[in-house]
Amino acid sequence: MSASKRQKSSKDVPYELIYWPSIPGRGEHVRLALEEAGATYTDTAHVKDGIQTVLGQIDEKNIGDAQNPPGLAPPLLKHGDLLISQTPNILLYLGPRLALVPSAEDDEDGIYKVNQLALTALDGLSNEPHDCHHPIASGLYYEDQKPESLSKSRDYVKNRLPKFLGYFERVLRGEASGQGPWLYGGRLTYADLVLFQCIDGVKFAFPKAMEESEKSGKYVKLFELYDAVKSRPRIKDYLTSERRQKYSNGIYRYYEELDVTG
Amino acid sequence: MSASKRQKSSKDVPYELIYWPSIPGRGEHVRLALEEAGATYTDTAHVKDGIQTVLGQIDEKNIGDAQNPPGLAPPLLKHGDLLISQTPNILLYLGPRLALVPSAEDDEDGIYKVNQLALTALDGLSNEPHDCHHPIASGLYYEDQKPESLSKSRDYVKNRLPKFLGYFERVLRGEASGQGPWLYGGRLTYADLVLFQCIDGVKFAFPKAMEESEKSGKYVKLFELYDAVKSRPRIKDYLTSERRQKYSNGIYRYYEELDVTG
Repeated sequence: MSASKRQKSSKDVPYELIYWPSIPGRGEHVRLALEEAGATYTDTAHVKDGIQTVLGQIDEKNIGDAQNPPGLAPPLLKHGDLLISQTPNILLYLGPRLALVPSAEDDEDGIYKVNQLALTALDGLSNEPHDCHHPIASGLYYEDQKPESLSKSRDYVKNRLPKFLGYFERVLRGEASGQGPWLYGGRLTYADLVLFQCIDGVKFAFPKAMEESEKSGKYVKLFELYDAVKSRPRIKDYLTSERRQKYSNGIYRYYEELDVTG
Repeated sequence: MSASKRQKSSKDVPYELIYWPSIPGRGEHVRLALEEAGATYTDTAHVKDGIQTVLGQIDEKNIGDAQNPPGLAPPLLKHGDLLISQTPNILLYLGPRLALVPSAEDDEDGIYKVNQLALTALDGLSNEPHDCHHPIASGLYYEDQKPESLSKSRDYVKNRLPKFLGYFERVLRGEASGQGPWLYGGRLTYADLVLFQCIDGVKFAFPKAMEESEKSGKYVKLFELYDAVKSRPRIKDYLTSERRQKYSNGIYRYYEELDVTG
């Protein structure tokens, strides 16, 4: 029996998200995809001792198994025998299964457009905001790198944030986005969910700059997309449920002194 | 005629790499894949006024076309009517076409393992080394952020670099890597090429730390992979050709004062 066949038969099982409890973090992108699709999944954030599963996966002795290399950091997704890591990679896997990308029959290269947009949102609206409070060392406390964090946050809000918001506004104005509020092909894809979560996080971390951005009128379509995702019935239910965790000491943090304006 | 069919018929053409002239940069990952496969491609680095093509793509007025969203930054890959950006996304597209991933028939989820490994190498061995000389603002000069660069480089060499080197050594010791020097499935994939280029760049930027790493004996398989890629016949030819550009003011830079040890 081929590995391919063995995996197929083992995949008639729920998805298992392996991620840190108590922060939305990068795991949130995976959750939003699963929630929008109404998929059945388990989440270590809500399982007793779930953190032990996370720690076991990222243990320095873990060398993976016969089919799967180890992951370096959560989130990981387990689906039957398959175990993969890296947020954009997990979304790429889930996309066709959850109908959150165009079908290959209709648009064979659509998935590369969606992946491009998701990667770009994660770069500039997730990784960079994280580095605003950890510009020198991710292993040190914020308190050990406060002046550098302020410098980086000022640059971010002045230069980087408008660059990325402006980019997505252009994408939304472009013909390839199609009709309606979505980034690509006139339909909701996981790139829209990623962008929603990124905007939501940046609004939490930099409320003043984001209020200015919204009032500027430069990013009308972007904020329309944000509202459109937020009012999807399943997303709306999810956001008000206990499954949605509050921002705290994760990627998106609120420090009054970093809440600067451009 | 469907978009899918139109694209197929338009794809019997060379690949076109759109990237900055005069640095290897992130474009190098795309070049190595094309070179290893012996593919026919054009490269704006070697075309008169190629930089104009790059600048046109990333112009703030560019909203893409009917099928393709704009890209935010190079590299971009044009293939017939398709135009995509983001290094790991371009590699994902090229992987099956250049036979640099397991075939879907043999290993339907192999591509997700390869993508995971490529994304992880780019995170820790390309993005982070870049941030070592630009920890505060990518739009400022290194000379404007020298003390912060030194702090970040010290942390990188002491904590982050061993974390990533150790991870890939574990991957290579794991069963899923298969027999031989490669990261996944006992055969060369584009993840190996990405890791080679990352190691090569980090050796240029942090020669002392990398010499220590090699001498430590902790990463024997990692350096074996590096040598194995380097001695692939087509890669060897490429590396000594004029198409291979020298490191200069790109992602990987050599500053004597940042060449610290753990």
